[in-house]
Amino acid sequence: MVTTWAYIAAICCIMDSLDFRPDRSQFVYTFGGAAPSHRVRPGTLLNLWSEDAFNHALTRVSDVASHVLDFRYLNPQTGPFYVEGAEPDDTLAIHIIDLTPARSWGASAAIPFFGGMTSTDRTAMLQQALPEATWIYEVDTLAGTVGFQSRFSDFEVALPLAPMLGTVGVAPSGGEVRSSLVPERFGGNMDTPEIKPGTTVFLGVNVEGALFSIGDGHYRQGEGESCGTAVEGAMNSVILVDLIKGRAPLWPRLETDDYWMIVGSSRPMEDSWRIAQLEMIRWLSELFDLHEMDAYQLLSQTAEAPIANVVDPNYSVVVKVRKSLFPTVHAFDGMHRDLRERAAIR
Amino acid sequence: MVTTWAYIAAICCIMDSLDFRPDRSQFVYTFGGAAPSHRVRPGTLLNLWSEDAFNHALTRVSDVASHVLDFRYLNPQTGPFYVEGAEPDDTLAIHIIDLTPARSWGASAAIPFFGGMTSTDRTAMLQQALPEATWIYEVDTLAGTVGFQSRFSDFEVALPLAPMLGTVGVAPSGGEVRSSLVPERFGGNMDTPEIKPGTTVFLGVNVEGALFSIGDGHYRQGEGESCGTAVEGAMNSVILVDLIKGRAPLWPRLETDDYWMIVGSSRPMEDSWRIAQLEMIRWLSELFDLHEMDAYQLLSQTAEAPIANVVDPNYSVVVKVRKSLFPTVHAFDGMHRDLRERAAIR
Amino acid sequence: MVTTWAYIAAICCIMDSLDFRPDRSQFVYTFGGAAPSHRVRPGTLLNLWSEDAFNHALTRVSDVASHVLDFRYLNPQTGPFYVEGAEPDDTLAIHIIDLTPARSWGASAAIPFFGGMTSTDRTAMLQQALPEATWIYEVDTLAGTVGFQSRFSDFEVALPLAPMLGTVGVAPSGGEVRSSLVPERFGGNMDTPEIKPGTTVFLGVNVEGALFSIGDGHYRQGEGESCGTAVEGAMNSVILVDLIKGRAPLWPRLETDDYWMIVGSSRPMEDSWRIAQLEMIRWLSELFDLHEMDAYQLLSQTAEAPIANVVDPNYSVVVKVRKSLFPTVHAFDGMHRDLRERAAIR
Amino acid sequence: MVTTWAYIAAICCIMDSLDFRPDRSQFVYTFGGAAPSHRVRPGTLLNLWSEDAFNHALTRVSDVASHVLDFRYLNPQTGPFYVEGAEPDDTLAIHIIDLTPARSWGASAAIPFFGGMTSTDRTAMLQQALPEATWIYEVDTLAGTVGFQSRFSDFEVALPLAPMLGTVGVAPSGGEVRSSLVPERFGGNMDTPEIKPGTTVFLGVNVEGALFSIGDGHYRQGEGESCGTAVEGAMNSVILVDLIKGRAPLWPRLETDDYWMIVGSSRPMEDSWRIAQLEMIRWLSELFDLHEMDAYQLLSQTAEAPIANVVDPNYSVVVKVRKSLFPTVHAFDGMHRDLRERAAIR
Repeated sequence: MVTTWAYIAAICCIMDSLDFRPDRSQFVYTFGGAAPSHRVRPGTLLNLWSEDAFNHALTRVSDVASHVLDFRYLNPQTGPFYVEGAEPDDTLAIHIIDLTPARSWGASAAIPFFGGMTSTDRTAMLQQALPEATWIYEVDTLAGTVGFQSRFSDFEVALPLAPMLGTVGVAPSGGEVRSSLVPERFGGNMDTPEIKPGTTVFLGVNVEGALFSIGDGHYRQGEGESCGTAVEGAMNSVILVDLIKGRAPLWPRLETDDYWMIVGSSRPMEDSWRIAQLEMIRWLSELFDLHEMDAYQLLSQTAEAPIANVVDPNYSVVVKVRKSLFPTVHAFDGMHRDLRERAAIR
Repeated sequence: MVTTWAYIAAICCIMDSLDFRPDRSQFVYTFGGAAPSHRVRPGTLLNLWSEDAFNHALTRVSDVASHVLDFRYLNPQTGPFYVEGAEPDDTLAIHIIDLTPARSWGASAAIPFFGGMTSTDRTAMLQQALPEATWIYEVDTLAGTVGFQSRFSDFEVALPLAPMLGTVGVAPSGGEVRSSLVPERFGGNMDTPEIKPGTTVFLGVNVEGALFSIGDGHYRQGEGESCGTAVEGAMNSVILVDLIKGRAPLWPRLETDDYWMIVGSSRPMEDSWRIAQLEMIRWLSELFDLHEMDAYQLLSQTAEAPIANVVDPNYSVVVKVRKSLFPTVHAFDGMHRDLRERAAIR
Repeated sequence: MVTTWAYIAAICCIMDSLDFRPDRSQFVYTFGGAAPSHRVRPGTLLNLWSEDAFNHALTRVSDVASHVLDFRYLNPQTGPFYVEGAEPDDTLAIHIIDLTPARSWGASAAIPFFGGMTSTDRTAMLQQALPEATWIYEVDTLAGTVGFQSRFSDFEVALPLAPMLGTVGVAPSGGEVRSSLVPERFGGNMDTPEIKPGTTVFLGVNVEGALFSIGDGHYRQGEGESCGTAVEGAMNSVILVDLIKGRAPLWPRLETDDYWMIVGSSRPMEDSWRIAQLEMIRWLSELFDLHEMDAYQLLSQTAEAPIANVVDPNYSVVVKVRKSLFPTVHAFDGMHRDLRERAAIR
Repeated sequence: MVTTWAYIAAICCIMDSLDFRPDRSQFVYTFGGAAPSHRVRPGTLLNLWSEDAFNHALTRVSDVASHVLDFRYLNPQTGPFYVEGAEPDDTLAIHIIDLTPARSWGASAAIPFFGGMTSTDRTAMLQQALPEATWIYEVDTLAGTVGFQSRFSDFEVALPLAPMLGTVGVAPSGGEVRSSLVPERFGGNMDTPEIKPGTTVFLGVNVEGALFSIGDGHYRQGEGESCGTAVEGAMNSVILVDLIKGRAPLWPRLETDDYWMIVGSSRPMEDSWRIAQLEMIRWLSELFDLHEMDAYQLLSQTAEAPIANVVDPNYSVVVKVRKSLFPTVHAFDGMHRDLRERAAIR
C-alpha cells in the first residue's frame, strides 16, 4: 500500500493539464488531415469544450434542419491533439472522467434522408422524405433529466440525463482523411452510449502523435440512434490521456470497471458484429491464454451485444463481456484501473 | 383488494393444466404442417418437457457433431398446441412462468459451416471448416451455475445458470411450413435471452388454433449466439397460455415487468433492426397516442437494442424500452400483469 | 449420323406429352404442400398454360393493386408435376422449348411497399408509400414487341418481346412449404431473364416425384426487376422434362447453348453472389478436373454476374460463364444438348 | 457535313496532348490529398502509363503475395491531373480511347483474407486463410489472348484479351482523402469491365481542378472480380479529357455507343444496386422528360445489372440500359459522341 500511495503521489505531481475551448474557426471536421491544436504529454488531464453536432444551428423547434444545417460543418471536433511519443502501433488510452452538459438544452432532429427509419443516400429509394422536425430537450440539472416534448402530439416526459461522447477518434492509417461523421477502425463517430464517464477507450495509433479528437456530445442516446441524432449538446469533457507502447488493437477496445468491450463498424451490420466478435475472441484469448475455439465458445455464452448506431456511414455494434464472469485479470497491464485511480485523486 | 382476491380465486379455480413429455416419435420439426398434439383452452397452465436442440445426440465431449447429428431432426418442438378459439388476427399470449434444466448437463458445439464466425451455406466461402468440438457444461443447481471447461486450453469457469427458450412460435401464414430452426414473423427460433421466466410473448395468430410450440431450451446463451449453439439442454417449462381476440402484432412482442420488446428477424441484420424499430414505433404510438414522428424521436433516445442471434436462417434483433421511463400504461389491456398474477397464485 | 437419327427416332416415338390448362381452382401457391396435378414420366413434353402473377386481377390501367390484388393468391403455379422415378438427390432437368404470350397484353404495377426502390416489410421505414400505378403493355406479335405507355408523363416506346418464366421450382427439403413468391435452393421465384426458350434448368430433387411447377410468365423483364413486377402475362409454355439419377446440384444450375449458369438466392445480395460463385467454382472443378483454387482464379477472370431480382423474399444473382471460353465438355453427360435435339425434332 | 469537318478540323488543331510515364516516386495512392502531377486543359489527349495494382511486386508464380506485397502501396495511380477551369459541381468527362498492355504478362493472386470467397477484415471469421498463389498470364498480342495456366491442376486455356481500367477517380468531397482501393461517389476503384476503350466516364467534380487519376489496368476481369484481383498489368492508356460546366452527376455515369450506365458503390450490395437504380431513374427522367414513376417502370423492364466487384471496401454494381431501346437523345449535350469523333480523327 505504501508503494501504491507513493506511486499515486508521484503521478499526481506530474499531471499536466490543459483547458481548451475552441472557437468556431478552430473546429475540425475530419479525422486526419488537420494540424494539431495542441501537443500533450501522456498523462495529461484535458478539460475540453465541444460544440454540438449541429454546430449550434438548431436552437429552437422552429429551426428546420434542411434550411439551417451546413452539411460541410457537422460533428465539429475539439482537437486534434498530438500525443508526444505516440507512434504507429502504439495504443492510445483515453479515459473519460466526466461529461457535463455545457448548455441548458439539447437538440435532436429528423433530417431529410438521414437516419435509420428513412431511405438515405445509400439505402436509396424513390419515396418522399419524412417530415422534418426539431425537438428541444431542456436540461434539468437538479433532477438529472432532459425533457422530451412531442412536436406532433400532446405528450411530454422527463428522461434521465446520461451524457456520452458520440465521437472519439485518431487519424486513420494509409494517409486517409475521413469525415468526422464516420466510425471506423480508428474510432470516430461510433455513437455508442458506452463512451460515458468511467470508460477508457483504447485506440491503435496510426500516425505520429496519434492526433486524437473528441466531439459530438450527447446528453442522452438510445442504442441504434435511430433517427440519426441523439440529444445533441455542447459538452464539457474531462479526459485523461495516456499511452501504451505497442500493442495496438485492430479495432477500438473499451473498458469500464464492469466490462470489456469492442466496437466494430462496417456494413452490413452483421459485418460490424463479426468484426467485434473476432476482436473480442482475440482479446479473451490473450487475457486468459485461451485457444481461439475455446474463446469463441466462451464468448458465445457470455457476450452482450448492444447495437450502437445504424445511421452513420458505417453501422457500429458493441460486443461486451462482464468482467465479473471471468477470473480477475488486468487488460493492458491494468491501464484502466490505473487511470481510474489517477482520476479519483486529481 | 376484495375484488382482486375474488378475481384471482375465480381464475384459480378454472385454471386448466396440462403436463406433456413427448417421446421421440412425437417431436415436431416445423412450424406449421404438423397435427396438434393437444387442444388447450386459453388460460391453461402447461408443464412441458422439451428435448435439447441436438436431439440428445451430443452427450460427451468426444461426440462429433458432423458424425452424430441428424440435420433433419434438430430443434425438436414440443407441441404444437391447438388453442381453442384462436383465429387469424388474434393475439396469442404465452407467459413463461418457470424454466428448469431437465438434465444435469448441457452441451454446446462448433459445427462445420454453422455459426457466426464461420462461412456458412449462405455466406459461402472456399475456406476449410473450423475444427469441430463439443463442450459439456455441468449444471450445479445449488450454486446456480453451468461449468465451462475449455477443450483446447486449460481453463474453466462457472457461469450463472440463466435458462431461456430459444424457440416459441406459431404456424406461419400463407400455408407455409418452416423449419424449427427459422425465426420469423411467427416467432420461432428467435434465440433471444429475453425469453426467460417472467416474460410474456405475444404472437399474431395465422391459422385456426394458432398451433404454437416451444423448444430449444438454453441453460445459458450470450447475445448473438455466436458459435451457433447455446448451452443446449432438455428443459422443463411452466407456461401459461392465453388469448386476446384480434389485435395481432405484425412481429413478436415481448413484455416483462420492466420492458416492452419487439423481435425482428431478417437479413441483413440492419433489416431485422428496422423491422423491430418500426413495430416499436407503432407500439409506442398506440400506447401513448403519439404521432409516429414523435414516437420515432422518443425511441431514438430510449431504445435498447441487443442482438439476439446472427446464426439462424434469419438474424434476430431485439428493440426494447424500459417501462419505467414512460408513464404507466398497460399494453394489451394489462394481459402481462394479469398473467403474472395468475402465475403467482397458481 | 445414322446412329443419331436412329436415336432421335427412338426418342421421338416414345415421347409422352401432356397438355394442361389449369382453371383457377387448380392453381397452387406454394412449393411443397400441394398434391400433384399429374404424374409424368421423364422425357414428357408439357404444353402448359399459366396465369399471370397477379392472378388476372390487373387488366386495365385503372386497376389499383392494393384494391384488387389478393396477396394470398399471387404467382399461381401450374403443377406440381410428380416425375416418376425422381428421388431425393436426383437431378431434374427442365428444358424450356418455347414460351408464347397467352394474352395480347401484359401488366406491370407499382404496389405499395413492394419493390426495389421502396421500403418494404423487411427494409422497413417510416416513409409513405410510393404512388400506385398499373401499366398495361400491348403485345404486338408481328413486330415482336410490348408497348410501354407512360402513366404520369407523355411517352411511349415499343420494347422487344422477350418471354421468360419467373418461377420454376420443386418441393423444398426438410418438409418445408414455401410461398411461390420465394426463390431458394429449390429454384422457385428466381425471376431471372435467363430462364427463356433454349434454357435447361437443373434442380436437385428433395422429395419423391420432385413435384415441380412453373408460373409467373414475363413477356419481358429487366435485370433486378426493380419495381417488383415484370411485364406479367399468362403464358403458354412448351417444356421437356427429364431426370438424371443422383448428382443433385446444391443450387439451381442453368445451361443454354452458350452458357453455364448458377442462380444463388439469399440476403444480403453479396450472399446470393457468394452462393452462386461457390457453386460455379465447384461445377468448373468437376467439369475440368480443376483444383478449387484454380477454378476460383479462372472464374475471377471469366464470370459474368447479372443480377436477377432484388425484390423477392430472397435476392437472386446469376453467375455465368460463356462455354466458348472453355474446352468442350458436356455437363450432366450432355443432357442439355440432348434435350435441344429432342426439342428440335418434336 | 462541311460544318462538321470544319468543326473537327478546328478541334483537331487545338488538341493539346500530354505523355506521362511516372516513375515509382511519382505514384500516388489516394484520391485527394496529393498535389497534381500536371495541369491540363479540357480537350487534352493523355498518353499515360500506369503500373500494375501490385506495384510490380508479383512477377513470377513463385512470388507470394503476403511476402512481397507492401499493402501501403497498392493500386498506384498515375496523376492526379488538375483540369483547368474545373470547379465543384462541374462534370468531368474522361473518354477512354485506347488501352494497350504495357507488359507481355499480367499477374493475378489469391491474397490471404482478401477477395470475395474468403473471410476478410470486414466479413471477419475465425477460419484459416485460403492457400496463397500467384498466376502469371502471358499476353499473346497477335492472338489477342492472355494465357491461364493452372497452379494446382493440369489445365491451360487462352482467354481473350479485354483491357480495362479498374480505377478512374477524382478527389472526394468534404476534404476526405481515400485510398486508391476504394470505389465511391468520386469513382475510384470501381473495377468494372465496362471501363474499356470506347467508354466515357462522367464524374462530378468536388474540388477545384477535379484532380483525377487513373490506374489499376486489367488485361481481363470477370464481373465480380471474385478472387480480388484481375489479370493485373501495367497499361498504356490513351485518354481524352473534357469538362462540362455544372450538371455534376451524384454518382459515376458511363456512356458507350451502345449503353448508358451508372456505377453504384456501397455495402451491402443491394445498396450499391439501389444507388445505381435511383441515379439511372433520374437520368432517364431527365433524358426523356419522364415522371420518376414512369422511369422506374421503364427501367424495371429494360435494365441490365452486371455486378462489378464484390471485393473492394465498397461493392460496385452497374445498372445499364441499351440506348437502342430508346428514342435517340444525347446525354450531356452529346459529349460522348463528340469525344468519339475527336478520338477518331486524332
